[in-house]
Amino acid sequence: MIKARVTVTLKNGVLDPQGKAIEGALGGLGFSGIGSVRQGKVFDVTLETADRMEAEANLKSMAERLLANQVIEDFSVEIL
Amino acid sequence: MIKARVTVTLKNGVLDPQGKAIEGALGGLGFSGIGSVRQGKVFDVTLETADRMEAEANLKSMAERLLANQVIEDFSVEIL
Repeated sequence: MIKARVTVTLKNGVLDPQGKAIEGALGGLGFSGIGSVRQGKVFDVTLETADRMEAEANLKSMAERLLANQVIEDFSVEIL
Repeated sequence: MIKARVTVTLKNGVLDPQGKAIEGALGGLGFSGIGSVRQGKVFDVTLETADRMEAEANLKSMAERLLANQVIEDFSVEIL
């Protein structure tokens, strides 16, 4: 069994209103010196295989086809 | 300037309908052997400080106070 994490983040230049809102909220809570906040997603996936290469290829394919919108998002796959 | 990533994930045992839906969708796309999918959030934060210790303490405090709901979520802070 392989555990993996797919992290999906917005590409540079894509507006992130949710991140901006969090930035504002942190300022409101008294945190200073915050340059920027960008929000992304993680998917913790468990695969019933022992083949790391196969798992990595599968996860990349899952990210390309479903988990990430490659027009505006980047992704990275990490086997844990 | 310090770049950091705060990762927020659901605690074990907390239902994740969004993860379940993704699991189903991946099955529908023909992916097999998927044990489970759990969705979480990442926050990429840039801080205007050079003090790693201070940054880490600040980020932990941000996660506790705003980014994570500690009743149902765990978080981890990673300085990049």
